[in-house]
Amino acid sequence: MKMQVLTKESDDMDKLHRNERISVLQRILCESPGKVFTLGYFTDMLNCAKSSVSEDIDIIRSSLEKTGAGTIETIPGASGGVRYVPMMSEDAVQQLAGRLSAELSIRERILPGGYLYMLDTIYDPGTVSEVGRVFAGYFRNRTVDYVITVETKGIPLAFMTAVYLNKPLVIARHNIEATDGASVNINYVSGSSDRIQTMVLPMRSLRRGSWLLFIDDFMKGGGTAKGILELAREFGCQVAGAGVLVETAMPDRKLPVDYFSLLTLYGVDEASGVTDIRPSPRLIAGGR
Amino acid sequence: MKMQVLTKESDDMDKLHRNERISVLQRILCESPGKVFTLGYFTDMLNCAKSSVSEDIDIIRSSLEKTGAGTIETIPGASGGVRYVPMMSEDAVQQLAGRLSAELSIRERILPGGYLYMLDTIYDPGTVSEVGRVFAGYFRNRTVDYVITVETKGIPLAFMTAVYLNKPLVIARHNIEATDGASVNINYVSGSSDRIQTMVLPMRSLRRGSWLLFIDDFMKGGGTAKGILELAREFGCQVAGAGVLVETAMPDRKLPVDYFSLLTLYGVDEASGVTDIRPSPRLIAGGR
Repeated sequence: MKMQVLTKESDDMDKLHRNERISVLQRILCESPGKVFTLGYFTDMLNCAKSSVSEDIDIIRSSLEKTGAGTIETIPGASGGVRYVPMMSEDAVQQLAGRLSAELSIRERILPGGYLYMLDTIYDPGTVSEVGRVFAGYFRNRTVDYVITVETKGIPLAFMTAVYLNKPLVIARHNIEATDGASVNINYVSGSSDRIQTMVLPMRSLRRGSWLLFIDDFMKGGGTAKGILELAREFGCQVAGAGVLVETAMPDRKLPVDYFSLLTLYGVDEASGVTDIRPSPRLIAGGR
Repeated sequence: MKMQVLTKESDDMDKLHRNERISVLQRILCESPGKVFTLGYFTDMLNCAKSSVSEDIDIIRSSLEKTGAGTIETIPGASGGVRYVPMMSEDAVQQLAGRLSAELSIRERILPGGYLYMLDTIYDPGTVSEVGRVFAGYFRNRTVDYVITVETKGIPLAFMTAVYLNKPLVIARHNIEATDGASVNINYVSGSSDRIQTMVLPMRSLRRGSWLLFIDDFMKGGGTAKGILELAREFGCQVAGAGVLVETAMPDRKLPVDYFSLLTLYGVDEASGVTDIRPSPRLIAGGR
């Protein structure tokens, strides 16, 4: 395989100055958010004293907090270490919600039946990374063992949330596959299409007693979320919360879990070509 | 929305020392791989001279290259700037392929019919990030306008490749949806199931004349890849290459595109519980 050959991790490390160490540490922490690294791991890699790495980490924590991008958490104890917790400042969340509202309300997105074309937005790496960061930040103090979604459109958002929370992703599908092994099926009424649909999840995809975070691109009637609640029950699991990019203002749904939406869709007027989509009220109120 | 309030990007920036600037720059570059940032963007944000940012970037480039994690490319001209190009050293790729071969060959993964249960691996954030990085590194010198996959299991891998290449993701589906708008359908024979299946792609998801990179979790007969080639033709697009996590050793498929696999599956013996899966030969030979 022809891939540019660069010096290996182990070489040259004794030549690194503080500046370079900080660059290496910041990259490693960033590329595995939520993952716990022992200081010993870094001292071995960088060939330097524990006190130096500690000081480097303090500098990184300070720069993260000054920019509102997150923090470095220290986990005490034998299995302890440090981990990067990504966040987004309230201002940055507002700015993102404003930008996406503008992007999604352009006339050309309106499809027959008053649907909105959003695929380019919900599959865009930059946008998905930012929204995943918002979801992960919002639910970071909840116990979450798995991020779960139902195929297909919410998968990139759910996956990126899983990356930022450092938790495995689980995808419920509509049909059984040979590669699933034994599986559990439930039926649910999809709010968007008002049809009875099936959700399938392989038996071995969840440990009993786990907490799930449900992530999706769009919530209307809440039927899919209710399906996830039922599926969770069948696995002896519970739902810690739900995060969606867009919820519709109506109908008023009663979900027995804390849920968060970034945007609220008030209506699509096909005739005039006007879409009313805005940052969600709870976002503006600053409440939870 | 209750999210920890931290200082905004604009405040306090005049207090940043070089160490902190490097931490901020490394994080921003890492969190948007492939994205071009002008030096002016950084000098405005960090409130410092262009020469300082240039020196900071040189330090980051040096640390990336010393660790084999990638490089910083400078794009000259008016719309130029710098961007982070993630890579993985040959050693790290070998190590990853070895670890995944061991992980996927454990006896408990064998399902009736000689299928392998791989969902936990192909939906795991850490693994998917590493494999996506390998794909992006392998194809980084090809022209790629979109990363494309077919629902469902390859989506996380394809999305992460799209993140590292900073290109939009496109997902072909099996059924039409109201939120697609007008779409193009083609039929193809799925190699794994030997059934005729349908692939649907919304008309507006691709610009004519684009280059596509096809990413999937598994390749057997190559039927899905051939379907993607046909779909590309219907859109006036071309396929730049294909990357799969696992390909089967047999049948010998003739694909008219450069394709890369990390692992090769030689066989699954249900009776003895032995799975023969190894790093792909081309990986070992070092050829392309």
